[in-house]
Amino acid sequence: MADTTRKTIIVFSGDLDKVLAAFVIANGAAAMGDDVTMFFTFWGLNALRKPTGPRVNGKSFLQGMFGRMMPRGPQKLGLSKMNFGGMGAKMMKLVMRQQNVSSLDELIETAREQGIKMMACTMSMDVMGLKPEELIDGLEYVGVASYLGEADEANVNLFV
Amino acid sequence: MADTTRKTIIVFSGDLDKVLAAFVIANGAAAMGDDVTMFFTFWGLNALRKPTGPRVNGKSFLQGMFGRMMPRGPQKLGLSKMNFGGMGAKMMKLVMRQQNVSSLDELIETAREQGIKMMACTMSMDVMGLKPEELIDGLEYVGVASYLGEADEANVNLFV
Amino acid sequence: MADTTRKTIIVFSGDLDKVLAAFVIANGAAAMGDDVTMFFTFWGLNALRKPTGPRVNGKSFLQGMFGRMMPRGPQKLGLSKMNFGGMGAKMMKLVMRQQNVSSLDELIETAREQGIKMMACTMSMDVMGLKPEELIDGLEYVGVASYLGEADEANVNLFV
Repeated sequence: MADTTRKTIIVFSGDLDKVLAAFVIANGAAAMGDDVTMFFTFWGLNALRKPTGPRVNGKSFLQGMFGRMMPRGPQKLGLSKMNFGGMGAKMMKLVMRQQNVSSLDELIETAREQGIKMMACTMSMDVMGLKPEELIDGLEYVGVASYLGEADEANVNLFV
Repeated sequence: MADTTRKTIIVFSGDLDKVLAAFVIANGAAAMGDDVTMFFTFWGLNALRKPTGPRVNGKSFLQGMFGRMMPRGPQKLGLSKMNFGGMGAKMMKLVMRQQNVSSLDELIETAREQGIKMMACTMSMDVMGLKPEELIDGLEYVGVASYLGEADEANVNLFV
Repeated sequence: MADTTRKTIIVFSGDLDKVLAAFVIANGAAAMGDDVTMFFTFWGLNALRKPTGPRVNGKSFLQGMFGRMMPRGPQKLGLSKMNFGGMGAKMMKLVMRQQNVSSLDELIETAREQGIKMMACTMSMDVMGLKPEELIDGLEYVGVASYLGEADEANVNLFV
């Protein structure tokens, strides 16, 4: 049965603006007392990367290439529009600070403090060659069935 | 409790094709008797800009830059794919007219006639430096909590 | 009333990575016993094109152009990020094979075997000039009202 106190968000995108939107919605719902689950898949996983990841062995050549080319963590994400090689993202972060809007780093921290469940999609991690030790702590490593189990219990399910 | 007569759509994207899809779904649901709420955030706000906005004071330098670089209203939106500097959007609008598909301007007008609730995200407006006087009339200016309140009452919630 | 055994996914995007995500979720839900409906619209229709479509008459000049420029079927879709003129998509497909992840062709085949309902949006087909004979077999050709009817019966509704 649908339960008004649960929400899930699939974070597929790794664009700064979209990931920001996902965390603003997630934190807003958690602040209203909802149980929130975020399921990170594909490019969305980049938002969870540590800025200076450990050197990881056991990647194939192509996985290593993906890993080197994809952004490492919230500070490196670009905008989905008007990014201009990173200038757009810099501009947006600057305006956000001027307007006292929380940064993505702060929003992720708040999400953890509020007990938002963050799941990393293991199938995407295999494809992109991301290892748990490259991602921030406190994640659950699961497949799509776990997401679906959460979504079945929720009344709002978004794909970002 | 979920209520089969309510729908919400977050319009995050400002791409013509995606905004068109959002309004087609919203108008379709409203025509079937549903209460529909659209929550415009980030680039999606550009679909609500007046084509010839008033000169607005009180913007920071960066907000002014965002404002000048972002498209002003439905006529200026580009496609998410194959836009080719606006040519793709022109082509699509032309085919739509040939196929008697409503234009985005018409869809927005229909949405208002059908009483679809349109909410503008004030946090995004702050970041992008958009002021209420630059947007079309009849909007509600709210935060994410208002969206979540609507979504809690709805049985279909989409993020576009 | 919401029914925990139904899911719908709007496949708006024609990017390989997003279409993959849509089918992984859809197949996962179907494997758990859910009734799943996928509604293909705009670029998402390209995932359903036959690789070597028949020559089709009755297209306008612009519809013909769209048809020639859009990718024909799963093998031709690009990535939403890091596509590099198709190289990125090739890389991802290669890694997927190395990791024993099903290809999009296989996922579509599984979706059909599992009885997932696939709907093609006729309004988008008109705009893009796609004819039923250019798309794979077994689709339902419907408008947005049919999608909304399905979504009203579902407890998870995503827009990809």
